[in-house]
Amino acid sequence: MRTVEWHNHGVRMIDQRLLPGRFETPVFHSYRDVARAIHEMVVRGAPAIGAAAAFGLALAGFESKAADRTQLLRDLEEAAQVLKAARPTAVNLAWAVDRLMRVAVSEDLESADDVRQALLNEAQKLADEDVEVNKRLGAFGATLVEDGDTILHHCNTGALATVDFGTALGVIFTAHAQGKKIHVLVDETRPRLQGARLTAWELKQAGIPFDLISDSAAGYFMRRGQVNLCLVGADRIAANGDVANKIGTYMLAVLAKENGVPFYCVAPTSTVDLTLAHGDLIPIEERSPAEVLNIAVAGEPAAPEGVSARNPAFDVTPHRYLTAIVTENGIVRPPYAKNLPRAVKNEL
Amino acid sequence: MRTVEWHNHGVRMIDQRLLPGRFETPVFHSYRDVARAIHEMVVRGAPAIGAAAAFGLALAGFESKAADRTQLLRDLEEAAQVLKAARPTAVNLAWAVDRLMRVAVSEDLESADDVRQALLNEAQKLADEDVEVNKRLGAFGATLVEDGDTILHHCNTGALATVDFGTALGVIFTAHAQGKKIHVLVDETRPRLQGARLTAWELKQAGIPFDLISDSAAGYFMRRGQVNLCLVGADRIAANGDVANKIGTYMLAVLAKENGVPFYCVAPTSTVDLTLAHGDLIPIEERSPAEVLNIAVAGEPAAPEGVSARNPAFDVTPHRYLTAIVTENGIVRPPYAKNLPRAVKNEL
Repeated sequence: MRTVEWHNHGVRMIDQRLLPGRFETPVFHSYRDVARAIHEMVVRGAPAIGAAAAFGLALAGFESKAADRTQLLRDLEEAAQVLKAARPTAVNLAWAVDRLMRVAVSEDLESADDVRQALLNEAQKLADEDVEVNKRLGAFGATLVEDGDTILHHCNTGALATVDFGTALGVIFTAHAQGKKIHVLVDETRPRLQGARLTAWELKQAGIPFDLISDSAAGYFMRRGQVNLCLVGADRIAANGDVANKIGTYMLAVLAKENGVPFYCVAPTSTVDLTLAHGDLIPIEERSPAEVLNIAVAGEPAAPEGVSARNPAFDVTPHRYLTAIVTENGIVRPPYAKNLPRAVKNEL
Repeated sequence: MRTVEWHNHGVRMIDQRLLPGRFETPVFHSYRDVARAIHEMVVRGAPAIGAAAAFGLALAGFESKAADRTQLLRDLEEAAQVLKAARPTAVNLAWAVDRLMRVAVSEDLESADDVRQALLNEAQKLADEDVEVNKRLGAFGATLVEDGDTILHHCNTGALATVDFGTALGVIFTAHAQGKKIHVLVDETRPRLQGARLTAWELKQAGIPFDLISDSAAGYFMRRGQVNLCLVGADRIAANGDVANKIGTYMLAVLAKENGVPFYCVAPTSTVDLTLAHGDLIPIEERSPAEVLNIAVAGEPAAPEGVSARNPAFDVTPHRYLTAIVTENGIVRPPYAKNLPRAVKNEL
C-alpha cells in the first residue's frame, strides 16, 4: 500500500510511529484528525505530509455541510489554515494545500459537490504525480551513483517519506535496481530515529546491504575515505539553494565538503520555495524536549529526571555545501538562484 | 566517594553502566575482574581507567602467591598485559600500568612484599595526583571561559571520567565556582549516551544550567552563533596534537572551525602519547554493534531485527581543528609538535 491514500471516505496512512515493530494503517475521517496525524508524525516526510494534507483538504470538503459553493470555500479556507499549521518547516504542506485551493476556486466548478469531487480528483492526481516524480528523481540521481559506491544517508527519504518510492532513498533503490553494487551507511537520526526505524526497515526489505551507525560516526567514515557520496532529502529549499532538512544534515554537509565527498540533496520541485530568498528565512520547528529525553537503554531512562533539553527538528544547510540538487526535472547545479527557478519551470 | 578507589583489599568503582538510575559501587577482588570491568565499561573515561588499571595491578601483586621478587615480577608482567589489553584507545591505561611496573622493578625493593606495598602506594599516589591534576586543568581551562558563555560539551569528562573532578567538565565546574554564569549544551553522545546519562547527572548535581541535545543538533546551535566555545576531553593525543576522543568529536571540531567557535581539548599529560607521530596511528576501538542497535523508544526496539551496524567508539581530530590543548602544566597552542613535549616535561 501507499504511505498515504484515500480509503473508504477517509485518509489512510501507515502509522510510522509504530514501525518497525508494528504495521498499522489507521483511517482518519476528519481533516482535523489528519492535521493532528501530521503534527504527531503518524505520517512524516515532506512529500508524504503534502499528500496527506491534500487528502485532508478533500476530506474537509466532504465534511462540510455547505450547500453552496461560497460557504464551502469558506469552510475549505478554514481547513486549509488548520492543515498548513500542522507543521511549519516542510513547504510541501502549504504547496499541496494551495494547489488544491486553486482548484477549489476555479470558476468552471459550479456546485459545492463539483468542488468536492474536483478536490478529491486533484488530491489523487497530486499523490499519483508524487510517485511519478520520485521515479524521475531516482533516474536522475542514479546517474550520480557508481558501481561499488558507499552512500551515506540521513533520516528517512524512502517510500515512507513520500506517497511511494522515495527521494534520496529512491535514488538508492534505482541504483540497486540497475545492478550497481552499493552499500549504505544509515544514520540512525536522533532523536526520532527515522534512520534506525524506517530506513533500515525499507533497505532490509529491498535487500540492499547497509550498516546502521550513530549520527556522530558519519564523520569518522568520511575522513577515512569510506564514503563516496551523501544523499539526503529536503523539507524546504530556498530560492538560493539553501536547504532545510532533518537536524544533522548541516553537520553532514560541512563534513562532506571538508572531506571532498559529494553531497546531494534529492527533492521534488514541490519542496522548492522561491518566495524565500535564503534558508535562514525558513521557519524551523522545535519539537518537544521529550523526544530527546525519552530515550531508554536496557529499559532504564538515559537522562536523569527533570532535566531540560532543546530539540530543533531541522537545520539549514547553506547552498555552498551542496554539490547539486536533484529534482524530477534534472540535476540542478550552482548558481542555484539562477538554476532552481528554471528547474521549477522545467526549463533546465 | 571517588570513581575508583582501593577498598577492603579490592578495587571499588562506581558502576557507571547503571547511572543515573542506580548508584552501585561494586568491589573487584581480582585483577582479571578489574580488566573485565574496564572492558565492559563499569568504569570509563581515560583517566579513570588509568587509575583502575593501576589499582588492578596493585591487586595482582596481592593476588600472586609468589614468595620471591622474581616470580612476582613475572606474575605482574602477565597482569600488566591483561590490564593493558582491556581497551585499546586510551593511552592512560598503558601509561598507568607502565608507571607501576617501573616501580615494581626498582632495585631498592628487596622482597616480594616490598614490591606489593610499593605498587599499592604508587597506585594511591597516581589516583591522588589525578585529582590534583584535574584541579589544575580546571584552573587553566577556566581562564578560557567568560561570564555568560554557552559551552558545548561532548561525552562525559567529569568526576566519573576521572578519579574525581574531571577534565573538560572540571573546567566547567571551576568556571561556575568562580561565579561565571555559564550554560552548557550537553551532547547526549550516542551510542552509550554518556552525555545524557552521566554529564547531565553531574551538571544537575552541581546546579549548573544546561540543555541536553541530540548530537546532530550541535551544528545548528554553532551556526546560529549560540555556542561560545567547545570543551572536550581526550583518550589519546599524538605527538603532533591529533586527538583521539569519543566518536563525534571530529565532527564537532570541524563544525567549530567552520563557525569560528574555539575548540579546546582538556586532558592531563598522561593522555599524551609522544611515541605516535600522528593521530592515524592511534588504535581505534570498534565496539559491539549491539550498542547502536539496542536502542528502544517507548519500550520498542528502534532498529529492525537482524540488521548490522558499525560502532567505532572513537575518532581522530586532526590538530588543525583545535584551538588549544589544556594540560595541567598550562595551555598548549600550536605548533603542538614543539609545544606538547614541553608540556609533558612541564617546561612550557
